[in-house]
Amino acid sequence: IGPGVPAPGGPHDLDDLLHPPPALVHQPGRVREYKIFAMDKEIEIAQGVTFPAWTYNGTVPGPVIRATEGDLLRVRFTNGSMHPHTIHFHGIHPANMDGVFEIVDPGGTFVYNFPATPYGMHMYHCHATPLKKHIAKGLYGALIIDPPQPRPTAREFVMVMNGFDTDGDGENNFYTVNGRAFYYARYPIQIKRGELVRIYLANLTEFDLINSFHLHGEFFRYYPTGSGDQYEYTDTVMLCQGQRGIIEIEFHYPGRFMFHAHQSEFAELGWMGFFEVTNS
Amino acid sequence: IGPGVPAPGGPHDLDDLLHPPPALVHQPGRVREYKIFAMDKEIEIAQGVTFPAWTYNGTVPGPVIRATEGDLLRVRFTNGSMHPHTIHFHGIHPANMDGVFEIVDPGGTFVYNFPATPYGMHMYHCHATPLKKHIAKGLYGALIIDPPQPRPTAREFVMVMNGFDTDGDGENNFYTVNGRAFYYARYPIQIKRGELVRIYLANLTEFDLINSFHLHGEFFRYYPTGSGDQYEYTDTVMLCQGQRGIIEIEFHYPGRFMFHAHQSEFAELGWMGFFEVTNS
Amino acid sequence: IGPGVPAPGGPHDLDDLLHPPPALVHQPGRVREYKIFAMDKEIEIAQGVTFPAWTYNGTVPGPVIRATEGDLLRVRFTNGSMHPHTIHFHGIHPANMDGVFEIVDPGGTFVYNFPATPYGMHMYHCHATPLKKHIAKGLYGALIIDPPQPRPTAREFVMVMNGFDTDGDGENNFYTVNGRAFYYARYPIQIKRGELVRIYLANLTEFDLINSFHLHGEFFRYYPTGSGDQYEYTDTVMLCQGQRGIIEIEFHYPGRFMFHAHQSEFAELGWMGFFEVTNS
Ligand SMILES: [Cu+2]
Ligand SMILES: [Cu+2]
Ligand SMILES: [Cu+2]
Ligand SMILES: [Cu+2]
Ligand SMILES: [Cu+2]
Ligand SMILES: [Cu+2]
Ligand code: NA
Ligand code: NA
Ligand code: NA
Ligand code: NA
Ligand code: NA
Ligand code: NA
Ligand SMILES: [Zn+2]
Ligand SMILES: [Zn+2]
Ligand SMILES: [Zn+2]
Ligand SMILES: [Zn+2]
Ligand SMILES: [Zn+2]
Ligand SMILES: [Zn+2]
Ligand SMILES: [Zn+2]
Ligand SMILES: [Zn+2]
Ligand SMILES: [Zn+2]
Repeated sequence: IGPGVPAPGGPHDLDDLLHPPPALVHQPGRVREYKIFAMDKEIEIAQGVTFPAWTYNGTVPGPVIRATEGDLLRVRFTNGSMHPHTIHFHGIHPANMDGVFEIVDPGGTFVYNFPATPYGMHMYHCHATPLKKHIAKGLYGALIIDPPQPRPTAREFVMVMNGFDTDGDGENNFYTVNGRAFYYARYPIQIKRGELVRIYLANLTEFDLINSFHLHGEFFRYYPTGSGDQYEYTDTVMLCQGQRGIIEIEFHYPGRFMFHAHQSEFAELGWMGFFEVTNS
Repeated sequence: IGPGVPAPGGPHDLDDLLHPPPALVHQPGRVREYKIFAMDKEIEIAQGVTFPAWTYNGTVPGPVIRATEGDLLRVRFTNGSMHPHTIHFHGIHPANMDGVFEIVDPGGTFVYNFPATPYGMHMYHCHATPLKKHIAKGLYGALIIDPPQPRPTAREFVMVMNGFDTDGDGENNFYTVNGRAFYYARYPIQIKRGELVRIYLANLTEFDLINSFHLHGEFFRYYPTGSGDQYEYTDTVMLCQGQRGIIEIEFHYPGRFMFHAHQSEFAELGWMGFFEVTNS
Repeated sequence: IGPGVPAPGGPHDLDDLLHPPPALVHQPGRVREYKIFAMDKEIEIAQGVTFPAWTYNGTVPGPVIRATEGDLLRVRFTNGSMHPHTIHFHGIHPANMDGVFEIVDPGGTFVYNFPATPYGMHMYHCHATPLKKHIAKGLYGALIIDPPQPRPTAREFVMVMNGFDTDGDGENNFYTVNGRAFYYARYPIQIKRGELVRIYLANLTEFDLINSFHLHGEFFRYYPTGSGDQYEYTDTVMLCQGQRGIIEIEFHYPGRFMFHAHQSEFAELGWMGFFEVTNS
């Protein structure tokens, strides 16, 4: 934990991926606009390890997209990479906004335009073929749709679980949340004891059939897909690719609490971090 | 999608596997009789690809068995294959109807006879040893038990997820629902917008630890095992072998909506199809 | 089933692992003390097959630890092995009781001391690195925390699912519950028809991404993590490493009912047993 951990980058590099935009109360007729630009980019995924990624807006995962149920979501997609791509959103939308048949060639543009629904934690990813490659290369991100009356105020985080196959053998060599191995072990996430913590969690790991989130020393409520009121009170949840949910925690104790995949291999290859809980 | 898709067979070949028999209201003393005949058979699982299957009634999966809770289920099993087999049903039944100790030799017959319970989505499969081989060869099918007062009327489908290891190396080379790769991409399933769609889903995939069902552009209610009132509202569910459940959808939009495993490899090796939703 | 099954040991060898200590009603200020001693030990995991285990108290899994919510749990850990170890408990506790930073060297001692909470089924395991090895070698066990007013009286069992990699290639060669392949097929678990059966189930299997529990001929209620009132009524549940839950069954019929992983390979490599249900 701390400066000794071999994780890439500075303390604020992932701020935009960890901290979602704020939730907005429903307001009829509002449009939420996002611009997504596909670009091929070499990124540093572990200390001294680069990966020739295909990215949305230059990072893996791509930017966090957020809207309130009923907003019109307008995502202007430009393909600045050398391969055909799309954006496929999870959630409810018309067939011609699905990002499956409307392949966007290099240099092309497509505007995805649909009412955001249903509320919950979702995701987006490229759906060009071969699907396995377009996902493994890094074309995915988090999509949050808030209820019309947003959830109670909380310290909110986004965590996209993924893997990187750096030698092309169809197995992941590194596992991360938000794209950098051991990043939150080098830069623990700061929490105040007793405050409500909300994590928007998604699994986009390719190759491995499941991934998981385990929290040390504390329990949380897990709302699968973030789409209802039922939750499991636990410290370990498992997701296959495409699954996601919302975690809510209130820490009872101060101190450093690890979180990681409960697959030892994934944890040891980078999917591990810390919450640092201080008395407020 | 459509005629260009390399899927085997004609448009109605899988009708008996996709469309379950109708649900019946509870009626005291009713007997539901089925005949199952085990036979070795070469089947076409992908365009131009055959598999030396062990089958119930000549197909993989075998026939859909359906009864109402409280019906007496009577399944007359005859082993017309060259290997010993059984039928093991999921659900509640006496120990001597369990299809574990009562191995049926080639040429032999056994009558499974027990009250159908509890209501839910179930399955049946051979339980002869080696278990891995008898399942991988194709000896399984769907068992639906309806509540005494059947569920609301819906357009009902059965989807059994499976895999085929065509080269005997212990890994699946093709993945399907109802036994044929890409079949529902060549022949999309016809739906009317707004109508209630109900899918009886089961996972009998051997070798891979999980399989999953993902729907594009729409959400559904998932009732695990179909045995209760609690559901998850989502677009992606994961099942290990032996797990099953009931999906209920009402499509908001017309058009073509893909469904597939959210394991890219499974989707690209055949476990992919379309709903074609039309305005009624 | 019975004496012909090649399982190691005598009929009462696993009594302490199968039968948890009794639940106690909440009593303010009570201390629950356990002593755990890490020791390297060759254990017999399948008939004629030994495994060079790292153990808590000489068995894999280690002893069952049980307390009531609100008890002060005091676990005196002494490392009698040749490697550094810890005990990490799932549940809620102070950061300095988490068994991550407080590595206990050979010959050393550490006393874990914290209020037992929340009620549910939990687990403990070593958290020394490499994590994969310390778990695969056998350093884990069940932790049960009872509600202040204990659950209804039942015939209670503990089942810890695990695997053993006997040739060191990173894949399990045997799978068991409570450490011995086919043990409960040789010595079926005795049940009375109609009585309430409660199983505290946990998955500590290393290497494989999931494990599962399937029951023949009967249904059960599954309470994930044992931490709430919601359950699934089913016969098959899937868990990744670190997940656990509580199963409640009342058998309708007498006779022998198999239970096993619904991964054929795991079942055939030892994770298989029987309940023997008699009319009371
Ligand atoms: Cu893609
Ligand atoms: Cu933990
Ligand atoms: Cu079988
Ligand atoms: Cu989708
Ligand atoms: Cu450990
Ligand atoms: Cu069964
Ligand atoms: Na690799
Ligand atoms: Na791997
Ligand atoms: Na194969
Ligand atoms: Na495969
Ligand atoms: Na091995
Ligand atoms: Na294995
Ligand atoms: Zn792409
Ligand atoms: Zn841990
Ligand atoms: Zn997806
Ligand atoms: Zn068979
Ligand atoms: Zn898709
Ligand atoms: Zn089964
Ligand atoms: Zn250790
Ligand atoms: Zn079985
Ligand atoms: Zn753990």
